Amino acid sequence: MTTESRTTVGLLHPGDMGSAVGATVVAGGARVLWASAGRSAATRARAREAGLEDAGTLESVVQASRVIVSVVPPHGAADLARAVAQLGFRGVYVDANAVAPATAREIGRVVEAAGARFVDGGIIGPATRGTRGVTRVYLSGPGATEIAAVFGAGPLEAVVLDAPPGAASAVKMAYAGWNKGGQALLAAIRAFALAEGVDAALLAEWKISHPDLPARSERAVYDNAKKAWRFVGEMEEIARSLAAVGLPSAFHEAAREIYARLADYKDTTQPPTVEEATAKLLGPANPSSGRLRVRLRNREG
Amino acid sequence: MTTESRTTVGLLHPGDMGSAVGATVVAGGARVLWASAGRSAATRARAREAGLEDAGTLESVVQASRVIVSVVPPHGAADLARAVAQLGFRGVYVDANAVAPATAREIGRVVEAAGARFVDGGIIGPATRGTRGVTRVYLSGPGATEIAAVFGAGPLEAVVLDAPPGAASAVKMAYAGWNKGGQALLAAIRAFALAEGVDAALLAEWKISHPDLPARSERAVYDNAKKAWRFVGEMEEIARSLAAVGLPSAFHEAAREIYARLADYKDTTQPPTVEEATAKLLGPANPSSGRLRVRLRNREG
Repeated sequence: MTTESRTTVGLLHPGDMGSAVGATVVAGGARVLWASAGRSAATRARAREAGLEDAGTLESVVQASRVIVSVVPPHGAADLARAVAQLGFRGVYVDANAVAPATAREIGRVVEAAGARFVDGGIIGPATRGTRGVTRVYLSGPGATEIAAVFGAGPLEAVVLDAPPGAASAVKMAYAGWNKGGQALLAAIRAFALAEGVDAALLAEWKISHPDLPARSERAVYDNAKKAWRFVGEMEEIARSLAAVGLPSAFHEAAREIYARLADYKDTTQPPTVEEATAKLLGPANPSSGRLRVRLRNREG
Repeated sequence: MTTESRTTVGLLHPGDMGSAVGATVVAGGARVLWASAGRSAATRARAREAGLEDAGTLESVVQASRVIVSVVPPHGAADLARAVAQLGFRGVYVDANAVAPATAREIGRVVEAAGARFVDGGIIGPATRGTRGVTRVYLSGPGATEIAAVFGAGPLEAVVLDAPPGAASAVKMAYAGWNKGGQALLAAIRAFALAEGVDAALLAEWKISHPDLPARSERAVYDNAKKAWRFVGEMEEIARSLAAVGLPSAFHEAAREIYARLADYKDTTQPPTVEEATAKLLGPANPSSGRLRVRLRNREG
């Protein structure tokens, strides 16, 4: 295959998930560009490792790419689409972010106004470069089948929905709405039980009636604390998604608040214990938080 | 054992769970009274079957009982305590309802002001008269051990917490906060997926990554629709419980709304399908609900 016959794909940006997507597209046979301008040393290392080519600036990526795949935190998805549109992109723009169907459709209008085509995407699963079947990229819109071919047979499996833009994002919102929404609820319940001094009783009850919950509620804290800052925007998008069809948005407004209170763990090297996370969740101004700290002090003393 | 040496317990009221509690206390050796005044034929039948003695009026129950156990929907718990206090009850008052710790403590103050003692209770599990170990009554407060003896070794197991009033209610709120709060979230997510036309895609994804969720989300509707009217007050108590320690109340405000929209299924003989419940959850004024109905019509036609 010559360089000319290969599809050139711009990958914006090779964060944790983005680099996994990039590696998959490279495995599918495409040339994958990224823009190093303003990105961190960690991102550079990930991009190199994934086999991506540094095009330097966003403008160079836009000019050289037939396809652009956007993989950013949800609150950055619309801004990136606008920046790409302003640079006159006329290829296929794939938004693979955790955004509401309405946000995805709005992104579609922005890039289509610049002359590009739009494919809606949603990624479900961890940022893996391992076994195929663990993580799926849902795609919807008229160009979905063409984009699925770009993903090839790499670790991330492309699933084409026979549905308009918005559908792939809806699958992602529904999936994360339960998964991350439910984990936030579990973390809140453990924090409540600790604040009320009944955590041991709750864990004993769960061991009888729901034996998976003690470990699940701990993972809800351990696995999410470091990533919580990224989930804030995602919970806002899910709240908006449910509200748009007349369902209560409050589940995910609460989940947003839980993740916002854990956002300080962004750069932590060691995940917090449930007790440590609970002190953050209850907040410094709360009398229960004071009671909790007294108990923790007593235990240490 | 003569009638005189047996403890007389007033059971208010023998609904589904109340009659299971009554049968357990009867099995423990106590004489159990109830008040038929103003109660339905179904309640009379349940009380008879559980071996309870009809004392006629609330006043007669209060005068004859050394212990009163309150098992009512959460929104009725405080009113019943006030009515019993006004009748001059001076025995042990057990509130076994799904109320916030603060509500339980307020009920305690009301009955103690009348000269009674107070024990806080919380029931976790189904209304069973079968195998011991399925359902537990958590008890807290100075009289908890004495009351545990009244429950004996019947189907409902009494668990004494070495903690003040409020703790038993806190265990119940935490347990139901996940259980019923999570089920409301699952029902909302299925409704969202149906409204967006991606329910089949969500179920297919769940079958791969969370194979228990398709059935769990259906049970969240089937098992709860008939009881949803009772959960409205319980979700309000859980929202209040979390807010009291500085946690977001919005999870359970949303869950309250979900159950309120299903409240019409109170007298249903057959549980609704997920699709039927979704039409209720989205509400008649919602355009998505209209879209959903069109799809259902097409499928039937």
